[in-house]
Amino acid sequence: MAAEKGKTFRAVLAYDGTSHHGWQRQKDTPTIQGAFEDALFEITRRHVAVVAAGRTDAGVHARGQAVSFALPHARLGAGALQRALNALLPPSIRVKCLSPAPKNFHARRDAKRKRYAYRIYDGPVMPPLERLYALHSPGRIDCATMREALRRLVGKHDFAAFRAAGSSTKTSVRTLYRASLTRRGHRITMRFEADGFLRHMVRNIVGTLLMAGRGELAPEDMTEILRSKDRGRAGPTAPPEGLVLEKVTFE
Amino acid sequence: MAAEKGKTFRAVLAYDGTSHHGWQRQKDTPTIQGAFEDALFEITRRHVAVVAAGRTDAGVHARGQAVSFALPHARLGAGALQRALNALLPPSIRVKCLSPAPKNFHARRDAKRKRYAYRIYDGPVMPPLERLYALHSPGRIDCATMREALRRLVGKHDFAAFRAAGSSTKTSVRTLYRASLTRRGHRITMRFEADGFLRHMVRNIVGTLLMAGRGELAPEDMTEILRSKDRGRAGPTAPPEGLVLEKVTFE
Repeated sequence: MAAEKGKTFRAVLAYDGTSHHGWQRQKDTPTIQGAFEDALFEITRRHVAVVAAGRTDAGVHARGQAVSFALPHARLGAGALQRALNALLPPSIRVKCLSPAPKNFHARRDAKRKRYAYRIYDGPVMPPLERLYALHSPGRIDCATMREALRRLVGKHDFAAFRAAGSSTKTSVRTLYRASLTRRGHRITMRFEADGFLRHMVRNIVGTLLMAGRGELAPEDMTEILRSKDRGRAGPTAPPEGLVLEKVTFE
Repeated sequence: MAAEKGKTFRAVLAYDGTSHHGWQRQKDTPTIQGAFEDALFEITRRHVAVVAAGRTDAGVHARGQAVSFALPHARLGAGALQRALNALLPPSIRVKCLSPAPKNFHARRDAKRKRYAYRIYDGPVMPPLERLYALHSPGRIDCATMREALRRLVGKHDFAAFRAAGSSTKTSVRTLYRASLTRRGHRITMRFEADGFLRHMVRNIVGTLLMAGRGELAPEDMTEILRSKDRGRAGPTAPPEGLVLEKVTFE
């Protein structure tokens, strides 16, 4: 996977996850990794493995996914490669920028921080032009309570209670550097910045926060749920359409 | 078509035109009118003809389309009717509000003003999450020149030069009350408010303005084109995805 010879590149991708089955390549199913590797194959006539900082799930969007890959021989410069990729990729996937990277650069291993946003619309009728990029949760949500619950998650914690059932990463300790919630009319945006996220972590946190916002949980319960490390105590997984990987930071 | 008996309603619709072939009912093709009348049929078991203020073309969106229709007997109140319609319509079409109207209310005949918006993105790489709702026109557009050209269209004019080829309405004189152009980064929004619009009028104006924005036309040429009443003198029809019917005003 790592480039022994040739040239390593890093790229920032944006994509609409609506009709893709997530990042990870799958047989006979459209995925972002599949489309990107297929486009690279068209250009290089070699199979090139592409690594993403965050393996987004089916239906999740990105505005700032980071990826890395090594080409066996680099005939094209970064600018020409970016244009060639954008000409071959479907319009739902775009290379925002592309540049040469140090030989050992690895988008997943080297990522220091990631930022996700989750959008909710809480008016009675979902605006059709926003339906693909926000969760419709009709019925007024109490943002002050949600913010109070959210605050209790900031810091270094074992987030096992918010990890996808059945997943088994080595450690479920993560540091949530910042979390915010803003409202403009019926549009609510939550932002989460951490050194890493467990599978479904943002969506499980949002599902639990929504219970707080609807008065089904008190903010203090958040601390309890976190301490329990028990997925069964947290709320349901919020659907993918509201989630966007906004930014990956490297050092 | 007009309600002899029964009850007349007016409604405001929003829709994503991406996968609809415009407003007007067509055989075997998904249209907004078709979907709306089908939903009304499900509720009333009668064919109810629905009139729209503006017959938007294939791919054009709406945030504030106005429609009218008369039900033979009104068993449901306006609130229940709105909820029933939204439960039956696809998520790409939504009834934003619905209310009883005077017996003779007619959404097309009674509309006094309409406002359309047209959105353009002029950065090199189109953001995938905006691609369905804006035109991608890569290469810096000169907004000052476009604004100068746009200004020359405001007022009461014969807009024959901007009418779809082959269309034959009685008169092509319209009053453009306001027109504006704003830029935020690479995002350009134009707004047009008039007593009515000819078929393709906004898209033909935008196509011509874009020529000005790219230096292919001088602002003064706009006055010439308008005076010529010759469709052949104006620019190409801009694509539908950037266009949204934003508001219809009644007196």
